[in-house]
Amino acid sequence: MEDIKNYIEKNKEKILEELFSLIRIPSISSEAAHKDDMMKAAECWKTTLLKSGADKAEIFPTAGNPVVYGERIIDPAKPTILVYAHYDVMPVDPLDLWNTPPFEPQVRDGKIFARGADDDKGQSFMQAKAFEYLVKSGTLPCNVKFMIEGEEEIGSVNMGQFCENNKEMLRADVILVSDTSMIAPDIPSITSGLRGLSYMEVEVTGPNKDLHSGLFGGAVANPANVLVDMIASLKDNKQRITIPGFYDDVIEISHEERQKMAKAPFDLQAYKKALDINEVCGEEGYTSPERTGIRPTLDINGIWGGYTGEGAKTVIPSKAYAKISMRLVPDQDHIKISKLFEDHFKAIAPPYVKVKVTALHGGQGYVSPTDMPSYLAAEKAYFKTFGKVPVPVRSGGSIPIISTFEDKLGIKSILMGFGLESDAIHSPNENFPLEQFFNGIETIVYFYGFYAQAMKSKS
Amino acid sequence: MEDIKNYIEKNKEKILEELFSLIRIPSISSEAAHKDDMMKAAECWKTTLLKSGADKAEIFPTAGNPVVYGERIIDPAKPTILVYAHYDVMPVDPLDLWNTPPFEPQVRDGKIFARGADDDKGQSFMQAKAFEYLVKSGTLPCNVKFMIEGEEEIGSVNMGQFCENNKEMLRADVILVSDTSMIAPDIPSITSGLRGLSYMEVEVTGPNKDLHSGLFGGAVANPANVLVDMIASLKDNKQRITIPGFYDDVIEISHEERQKMAKAPFDLQAYKKALDINEVCGEEGYTSPERTGIRPTLDINGIWGGYTGEGAKTVIPSKAYAKISMRLVPDQDHIKISKLFEDHFKAIAPPYVKVKVTALHGGQGYVSPTDMPSYLAAEKAYFKTFGKVPVPVRSGGSIPIISTFEDKLGIKSILMGFGLESDAIHSPNENFPLEQFFNGIETIVYFYGFYAQAMKSKS
Repeated sequence: MEDIKNYIEKNKEKILEELFSLIRIPSISSEAAHKDDMMKAAECWKTTLLKSGADKAEIFPTAGNPVVYGERIIDPAKPTILVYAHYDVMPVDPLDLWNTPPFEPQVRDGKIFARGADDDKGQSFMQAKAFEYLVKSGTLPCNVKFMIEGEEEIGSVNMGQFCENNKEMLRADVILVSDTSMIAPDIPSITSGLRGLSYMEVEVTGPNKDLHSGLFGGAVANPANVLVDMIASLKDNKQRITIPGFYDDVIEISHEERQKMAKAPFDLQAYKKALDINEVCGEEGYTSPERTGIRPTLDINGIWGGYTGEGAKTVIPSKAYAKISMRLVPDQDHIKISKLFEDHFKAIAPPYVKVKVTALHGGQGYVSPTDMPSYLAAEKAYFKTFGKVPVPVRSGGSIPIISTFEDKLGIKSILMGFGLESDAIHSPNENFPLEQFFNGIETIVYFYGFYAQAMKSKS
Repeated sequence: MEDIKNYIEKNKEKILEELFSLIRIPSISSEAAHKDDMMKAAECWKTTLLKSGADKAEIFPTAGNPVVYGERIIDPAKPTILVYAHYDVMPVDPLDLWNTPPFEPQVRDGKIFARGADDDKGQSFMQAKAFEYLVKSGTLPCNVKFMIEGEEEIGSVNMGQFCENNKEMLRADVILVSDTSMIAPDIPSITSGLRGLSYMEVEVTGPNKDLHSGLFGGAVANPANVLVDMIASLKDNKQRITIPGFYDDVIEISHEERQKMAKAPFDLQAYKKALDINEVCGEEGYTSPERTGIRPTLDINGIWGGYTGEGAKTVIPSKAYAKISMRLVPDQDHIKISKLFEDHFKAIAPPYVKVKVTALHGGQGYVSPTDMPSYLAAEKAYFKTFGKVPVPVRSGGSIPIISTFEDKLGIKSILMGFGLESDAIHSPNENFPLEQFFNGIETIVYFYGFYAQAMKSKS
């Protein structure tokens, strides 16, 4: 059989058409209206796994969206790779900023444009196709298991229980995940750390109904103004978070380690230009990569209240709301941080409003040792495809479930992501370059080989 | 012919049905989708005026929504009352908080429920019906002119020009307006002052697209957080506005006058209970009525940015917005204040965001002397209907056009309003008690008599 490069070259159209069938299912996990689409996406994955070469594949119901499980066991004595991915995607609003409909994938300028093109339908499909090649070419060197969930974008709420319930079935030597990014097409990198997340929603209530701002303005607390004051007080003028105890468990990185990390390429001018900003902004005393890699932060993800339509309406709203999330670093515990936030937010509420705080979702951070066999195998695989040793990077993003896997299954994950910063994941016009997609398939195929080798020589 | 009380009693159903025809037209001036409804409402008023006894009535086009003008001239030598009102209404969102559809008027518990039930369709209709009675009963003691505009809720943008263009046609001795409130059904009051208004919209832009809060959070300014910081800084901890020069022209009221005003009944406990708040909040050193009557203020009327749907979306928005209005007192000039706001807001913008500031609308405050003939006539009219001398009240609301009338036409206005604080104008479930509506018609009829008398004895 031909090598992986030729195989991809010959099957490009077919591979893309299969991926597009998955992308066309609007499996937005945070919106109840898409409940049926979650099952459709799960069924699409089951079919994909069986067609790719799985001995068996099954849809496991959970309290929320189902998990698709599939496997190919060639020899129980050989090592086992457990592939983790997710079939759910983020919401698509604001819809008017998309150049083409989010669930009608299009290839333009060498990129696939669609919600999920990268995160995580495009990336997870590389895993399916690499597996398919290994099976078809008779070169699969180890056992493979797949678990594809449908709630990653809403905090993998039922995945912990699924792991608890199926420990034996999920036994593996490493978990392989393609849901992260590389620095640039010519600068391969492997994510060696992830931030944790604590995502809150707050509601501030003033008067019991919307009021006329003329008749009441100045005499009654406006909950939108109070919300704004409260949120503003959550950071000081050095962009440090003021919640008492917030930094207590943050592991301070040594000067030496920071110097090592600083060797990863980072072009501040290009970064600013790409985002069209004059200045960056973040915690005093840290570089931009450090601000996302090793420091926690707090952001408004959404804020709303009062009249937001066209023109002027002179109203004092009864309620104002915000979604506020905190990215956490080792060893911050997301449950502890959510509690600290809630206590603090209630404590600073003035007596003329009522405050409600809800933890929407959360997860722990994760650190991946760069000397474990899977990391070394991945390093070789990237080198073979891209011609450069990949840089280990602490990413600012969160995949809360990764630390849960370690906790529940006792298995480390290797994060072989092929996304790019320009992929606009979670944003309008999400995209994934075809080159990254096909290079990803190739790299994963190499990984299987190097990993099986490493495990063999180890045993 | 019977007296006004009997006339109302006999014609109640008919009067309400006519009012409801006007209310059913969804003439929301701030929403472009309702453009045709503005003309429908104008035509409804033209018909109403002709049927009520106007010699002529005409629809005057403007650069925006038309103005309806009608008149009945009985003797050029007699005094002339110019009635001003508006046929446009506020938007109706949030629609789900209405118990019945806003444009399907219903009488429940002795109140009319509908958008415009009070502001200003209900109140203005009292003028039409009082006029009709005076004509039918042959007791109209003076000339009457009507001008009904369709842009009051968006700042009467074309009314100044209309006055300029029609000075001669609009010549009158007093302008009569029913668009304000009384303290309570058993505490009649006349609005002797109005606050001015400066209504701004601000837009803060950070990165050129929505970003993933994990990958960028902490390293890039979040425009929602920046907006929140900027707005929070607009007031100090004494609830004083920090915009430089903001208080420069505020007329400080003497201790004596404040003591006199303090005699108007105000029940803080009842006020808090009605709004379901534990504490009031406002500028240090002033009572609640003073905070709305004689002090300027600043309120968020709307704020929005990022993800505001169900669940969690980990996004850093590209833009965040707010609508912010300031209520002004004599002698603050709204154009000057809008400029001060704009300059200050731009000055405090940090270098990592771009800021856009737009003045959406504005108007000057107004003070009505309590010794002018029209005020004294109104005082007698309220006494005759309600059995109590009305209290002069400085209202916190704004009717920007009132000061424009004085400016352009040289005519003072008398504000004979019959609304109540509980009418929820500008809010869901706007309503107007039938008793206030019918008492209003009666009081206006009396006013014509007392006013004509006063002007006669004066000349």
